[in-house]
Amino acid sequence: MNQTSTSSPPELAPLKVAMLGCGTVGTQVARLITQSGDDLRERIGRPIELVGIAVRDAIKQRDGIDPQLFTTDALGLVTRGDLDVVVELIGGIEEVRPLVLAAIESGASVVTANKALLAADADTLSQAADKAGVDLYYEAAVAGAIPIVRPLRESLVGDEIITVMGIVNGTTNYILDKMCTTGADFDETLAEAQALGYAEADPTADVEGYDAAAKAAILASLAFHTRVRAADVYREGITRIAAQDIRQARVNGCVVKLLAIASSLPDGKVSVRVHPAMVPNSHPLASVSGAYNAVFVESREAGRLMFLGPGAGGAPTASAVMGDLVTVGRNRVRGVAARGHNVYAHRPIASMGDVHTRYAVSAEVADEPGVLAAVASCFAEHGVSLQTVDQELGASTDHPTATIQVTTHQANEADVQACVDELGLRSFIHGQVRVLRVEGN
Amino acid sequence: MNQTSTSSPPELAPLKVAMLGCGTVGTQVARLITQSGDDLRERIGRPIELVGIAVRDAIKQRDGIDPQLFTTDALGLVTRGDLDVVVELIGGIEEVRPLVLAAIESGASVVTANKALLAADADTLSQAADKAGVDLYYEAAVAGAIPIVRPLRESLVGDEIITVMGIVNGTTNYILDKMCTTGADFDETLAEAQALGYAEADPTADVEGYDAAAKAAILASLAFHTRVRAADVYREGITRIAAQDIRQARVNGCVVKLLAIASSLPDGKVSVRVHPAMVPNSHPLASVSGAYNAVFVESREAGRLMFLGPGAGGAPTASAVMGDLVTVGRNRVRGVAARGHNVYAHRPIASMGDVHTRYAVSAEVADEPGVLAAVASCFAEHGVSLQTVDQELGASTDHPTATIQVTTHQANEADVQACVDELGLRSFIHGQVRVLRVEGN
Ligand SMILES: NC(=O)c1ccc[n+]([C@@H]2O[C@H](COP(=O)([O-])OP(=O)(O)OC[C@H]3O[C@@H](n4cnc5c(N)ncnc54)[C@H](OP(=O)(O)O)[C@@H]3O)[C@@H](O)[C@H]2O)c1
Ligand SMILES: NC(=O)c1ccc[n+]([C@@H]2O[C@H](COP(=O)([O-])OP(=O)(O)OC[C@H]3O[C@@H](n4cnc5c(N)ncnc54)[C@H](OP(=O)(O)O)[C@@H]3O)[C@@H](O)[C@H]2O)c1
Repeated sequence: MNQTSTSSPPELAPLKVAMLGCGTVGTQVARLITQSGDDLRERIGRPIELVGIAVRDAIKQRDGIDPQLFTTDALGLVTRGDLDVVVELIGGIEEVRPLVLAAIESGASVVTANKALLAADADTLSQAADKAGVDLYYEAAVAGAIPIVRPLRESLVGDEIITVMGIVNGTTNYILDKMCTTGADFDETLAEAQALGYAEADPTADVEGYDAAAKAAILASLAFHTRVRAADVYREGITRIAAQDIRQARVNGCVVKLLAIASSLPDGKVSVRVHPAMVPNSHPLASVSGAYNAVFVESREAGRLMFLGPGAGGAPTASAVMGDLVTVGRNRVRGVAARGHNVYAHRPIASMGDVHTRYAVSAEVADEPGVLAAVASCFAEHGVSLQTVDQELGASTDHPTATIQVTTHQANEADVQACVDELGLRSFIHGQVRVLRVEGN
Repeated sequence: MNQTSTSSPPELAPLKVAMLGCGTVGTQVARLITQSGDDLRERIGRPIELVGIAVRDAIKQRDGIDPQLFTTDALGLVTRGDLDVVVELIGGIEEVRPLVLAAIESGASVVTANKALLAADADTLSQAADKAGVDLYYEAAVAGAIPIVRPLRESLVGDEIITVMGIVNGTTNYILDKMCTTGADFDETLAEAQALGYAEADPTADVEGYDAAAKAAILASLAFHTRVRAADVYREGITRIAAQDIRQARVNGCVVKLLAIASSLPDGKVSVRVHPAMVPNSHPLASVSGAYNAVFVESREAGRLMFLGPGAGGAPTASAVMGDLVTVGRNRVRGVAARGHNVYAHRPIASMGDVHTRYAVSAEVADEPGVLAAVASCFAEHGVSLQTVDQELGASTDHPTATIQVTTHQANEADVQACVDELGLRSFIHGQVRVLRVEGN
């Protein structure tokens, strides 16, 4: 919406912006910068000029963008020396790190959507930015269009965060949702999602939880003012989730979601993990479906907050990038830079064995007297107290079997795993003992 | 969580903070400032010192707060001349405006939770702040602990907002919720809420929608970069909502909520309104219950976002105040102030008659041939197209009556009101024609 306005004299020198990458997100950002008209100028306080875009293929036709802007010389572009802002939308770590550092050292502020780079190297980048007196903003790196970086970095910075728990990967959320509706297994659903373009040809980053782990590391760093890297995050993907897990969840009044969880433990450690979990239908995260993302935050004073929105996609991600671009631009106009992320609490990372949560454990067992008692006492011996115990008879009368399912009260992960390992060795257990954590209550 | 840290040398001069008011919110803010320990210092970059609190009654015992801090001389406190930040938590307009202006003119940044003052006087205050080079922050003024001011002011500032629609008053949400569960009428439910402390002795500000209207004005100003005052907001409270409206909503698969809605109309006008509305059960706002608040935002690029959390209460509101205090403190440490709210688009306010939405209209009618046709043709004559028409026979056989309910497609408010006025004059209508807008689809 362009409105008549009188405040910013048009003769002000424009802010010079360069982009690295012009793919799914970059194309949308380029469109918004070039088509924005007066609004962007009014919001920033100065006009904005897109001076160059580095890509791999500078010849490729890209609709609506001046072909003269493209270059394959990314390093040359970011070291021109006259840039105010570099917007990095290439992705990946090794190739991009030197470009971002060069941009910062040349005096440009940086806006990026690159979760992988931040989860690996946030310290290096933010120290470089502080030293150069420039901004480093990355709202788009976590949960796409959802404002979550700024709320953690500023709105909740006077509070004490206890837990951040999010659905931060749209692809896996879509797949789990589909498995829930169709009753199909993982492989089949993944293939379908790939055919429809909802999952990449190489789906590893999504389905093995790497993408979510990078976001979890960023969220944990912000929430707890400590440095957490992707490599610190306990990670389990969704590839081993079977149709029977989804059914079992339904029996418990739950759905299965891939969660990224960062929590502050009473002993001062920080636990950061990505894994599938049963979430009760009554929890606000349970109804987050399809490509939507949501982040649930619990803090000491504010209580429970939730942020919901599109977690990916060109235009939604570009919205977050543009918010950062305006913020960084406003700072430039006033000749200031925001204080970099403040990491002062050097909190140890808890090992997964230290985590306490609830569990749903199920197994096919021989339908013999004493089996239920044996299972229950195995949990008791490991100090795990049970909340519910259910047994359901199998259909076959030749090989009489039953499915046992227990849910636990809050229990220690190491204890539960030891118990499950032990159950796995018992002769009355047929096949695998299946375990899913239960989160959110 | 106090962690060992090495970064901020303790000899740095503390930031001096004064508070105005020490009631529900102020008590919690005072507790958080005085008990925060190292964290606040680390996050701000300097220690923080609470130097005085203005109240009405300086003698009253207030647990855990040094009695020497209290004064009744609010003006004297804010004009000491050495303050870095004044946190205003008195509330109201006339008494507080001169205090806030005096604080700003004395060089202090201001953090406030005062929606009434902002919805009346944001221009005066932010111009004064810009002139003095100080910050004016007010995250707590809308939706308590929910970060919504900052997301609109910064995260979404590169996008084009289409609609902001929120449940921003916990008292009315609680009352409507109760009416829904118990089937009771408004007066009875209000009395119960007052007895339980969920509604004030004088509930006018809440139930007549004044509180929500102030918040709507603030949200609209931020979303559309234009100035909207409380007086510009169309306002209907919930006092005329009857048990039958709640039942009718249920029949339509809806709940009744008091909504604050700010939307950008295609003709460039801005519509800002507070009124009860039917919200479909499938809409994310429908399940926001009790004292929770939620704000739904739709923007051109990001799509649909929702922010959910506690909308009031001492500790949650204090969380938002503390986030602002840290932000403002960080700016002080670096000797900068954020750019004030930027109002550049002078957009006209649409009149309520210009609004287009959907409607549910019901009335008790004589059970005679031709009534349904007469009702339907009245809508048609006013250019209002119907989506559903339902007729239900009454129980009495002596005076055969029926209840007619129609829902409309998107229609113009003025047309619907004209039609309803005309229906009210027809002899086959018994009693009142009831109209509720239907929002969110
Ligand atoms: N897509 C989303 O929904 C989404 C959401 C949130 C965050 N992100 C993040 O946003 C970033 C970009 O994602 P995307 O989906 O837009 O990626 P993309 O579609 O794969 O686009 C990558 C762009 O980078 C260019 N590029 C690749 N290597 C380059 C190099 N060495 N030098 C110069 N340019 C190079 C490519 O050039 P060519 O066009 O010539 O091949 C392409 O324009 C990633 O960090 C991603 O994690 C994406
Ligand atoms: N309560 C909430 O949940 C909530 C949520 C969001 C925003 N807010 C906003 O926060 C602000 C404070 O609300 P609250 O609920 O904390 O109010 P409150 O409990 O009524 O407290 C008001 C405080 O202001 C003091 N005060 C009143 N008039 C004064 C004057 N002329 N000079 C000096 N002090 C004066 C009172 O002093 P005494 O203690 O001596 O009487 C009291 O300490 C309001 O703007 C409100 O809209 C409140």
